[in-house]
Amino acid sequence: MKSYYNRPIMASANTTVLTGIKPTGVPHIGNFLGAISPALRRAIDFEHAYFFIADYHALNSVDDPRSLRDLTYNVAATWLAAGLDPTKIHFYRQSDISEIFELETILNTVTPKGWMNKMHAYKAQSDRNKEANKSVDSNINMGLYTYPLLMASDILIFQSDTVPVGNDQVQHVEIARDIAQRFNKKYKTDALVLPQYVLEEGIEELPGIDGRKMSKSYGNTIPLFATRAEWEQSVRKIVTDSLTHTPETFRLTVLYKIFAAVASPESTERLVADFTEGTIGWKDAKDQLVEQLIERFGSASETYAKLMADKSQIDTILDKSSNEIRTKAQATLYAAKKAIGVR
Amino acid sequence: MKSYYNRPIMASANTTVLTGIKPTGVPHIGNFLGAISPALRRAIDFEHAYFFIADYHALNSVDDPRSLRDLTYNVAATWLAAGLDPTKIHFYRQSDISEIFELETILNTVTPKGWMNKMHAYKAQSDRNKEANKSVDSNINMGLYTYPLLMASDILIFQSDTVPVGNDQVQHVEIARDIAQRFNKKYKTDALVLPQYVLEEGIEELPGIDGRKMSKSYGNTIPLFATRAEWEQSVRKIVTDSLTHTPETFRLTVLYKIFAAVASPESTERLVADFTEGTIGWKDAKDQLVEQLIERFGSASETYAKLMADKSQIDTILDKSSNEIRTKAQATLYAAKKAIGVR
Repeated sequence: MKSYYNRPIMASANTTVLTGIKPTGVPHIGNFLGAISPALRRAIDFEHAYFFIADYHALNSVDDPRSLRDLTYNVAATWLAAGLDPTKIHFYRQSDISEIFELETILNTVTPKGWMNKMHAYKAQSDRNKEANKSVDSNINMGLYTYPLLMASDILIFQSDTVPVGNDQVQHVEIARDIAQRFNKKYKTDALVLPQYVLEEGIEELPGIDGRKMSKSYGNTIPLFATRAEWEQSVRKIVTDSLTHTPETFRLTVLYKIFAAVASPESTERLVADFTEGTIGWKDAKDQLVEQLIERFGSASETYAKLMADKSQIDTILDKSSNEIRTKAQATLYAAKKAIGVR
Repeated sequence: MKSYYNRPIMASANTTVLTGIKPTGVPHIGNFLGAISPALRRAIDFEHAYFFIADYHALNSVDDPRSLRDLTYNVAATWLAAGLDPTKIHFYRQSDISEIFELETILNTVTPKGWMNKMHAYKAQSDRNKEANKSVDSNINMGLYTYPLLMASDILIFQSDTVPVGNDQVQHVEIARDIAQRFNKKYKTDALVLPQYVLEEGIEELPGIDGRKMSKSYGNTIPLFATRAEWEQSVRKIVTDSLTHTPETFRLTVLYKIFAAVASPESTERLVADFTEGTIGWKDAKDQLVEQLIERFGSASETYAKLMADKSQIDTILDKSSNEIRTKAQATLYAAKKAIGVR
């Protein structure tokens, strides 16, 4: 595949942004600060924003039906409570847009198998198999292998021109573009819009309570939506030391980094001054962090709790969105079907 | 994959038969006698019969949109004129049942990639590549590679228990069964019905006008639906010889074989007697074959011509069928979605 996407995109030329959200875990404050909040800020610049819960993608890692159902609600409620305004951003379940899967069937026939073989996720797993002297495709299912095709269809069905991604997903937007280009060329059509990626700006890595990167898999997260007691319990475990700190050394501590990510610059500078002047100690600093968490996420936590207590509200919002955007998905699919001679 | 399908199926236990028709060529009398007629006879034994035009499968070999559109109508009109009664057999376009493609997305996640690697069509092409010192996946697209998954979904969406196939397709029904079994086991459900194949009874091979097997690719076919003039033109070219024939040797001739396949046993025996007794020669025998073609296919040819002259009739029939069977497709898909935790 060629790489001709390196030039910066022109904001003026792009109107439609798409973001997929995999329901594979309950979001924590690291997810909020690193992904949710930037995505919501970015959406404002676009005329159309499509945010979807990628429940079929999640099937490759979530085996248990109950977990998948619960995580879908968790994730939907989290984004809504975090400020996603469903009157401005189309917010829907992937599994509610059947046109995606039919378009994928069509895209299959213009996608060389060789392209799929080069996809990172597949290659990583097959390389591991080779190293372990296993059969190259051992433990790889067709869901993993065809994942980039499903993602291409997610992108193309809504004529998205912009897809913000991390480094590991650049390849998937490139292949979606290559597939669209190949389709348009083969059938002499402009039915599919060629998408471009934008790299998500790297935010400084947020440490977890043990000092390693905050991650569900390390069990070191601070919950995004919680009660005072839950936050207290979590914050209490943040690692500290018994050194005497200057402002410079204090800024290297775990507590400082988390505090700075959550609180305003003014509050953060006050904390630095108070702590390094000896006015407060670790216990007080932790208490202040809890207050900051409550200030920033307390009211959203209540919204989240209310949504989770009556999930039918979530269904109503997601269903409404699906119904609204169906026409656009149908239009893309119809154009593709006409181009290939099916209808 | 295991092979546990060798026992004969019990007619009483099976209720639903499924047959896919690829619109890749205009059917000739060889197709009628070898495939269309047996399929229509077989359908009578089943409570439910699903016959579909596999337009998305055809995309792997038909590149031109106009050809695909025309062939779809040709094939639909052919089966209808050949006696397919749409009030008894569900007759629909694959591309009108969107549930098929969504189910395929789900099936992907329970299908080991290793299973796809073993499929004949893919293996044949990749073996050819290796022999030619090309890259193993050269010129193979994902449509060809994932074809058995789409076929599994075609079968499973309507809870088909019986799929009549030629030898080359046995493997595809087996894998559909394996996938269904794996899905049901993983999700502790009986959402998917396990299909069985039945081998199509081998009919004696029909020769074309040049004596080789009748085949579109040899250009030696006799059209199924035609005018007297068209049949005369085709039959005139049947190869003959200038030998003196006994009934035994006459029965080895091309003309005899075609005549016997089209006409009644009585007419055929009269032809053998007349020819070997010298009452008639090749020219008369050919004239009689034309009369037999007219007797057998003349009125159906008119039906075919009428359908092709007003294709909206075909659309109406196919659309009506799709609408009627949609509920069943939705029920299967809904059961599968519930099982995996998507809804």
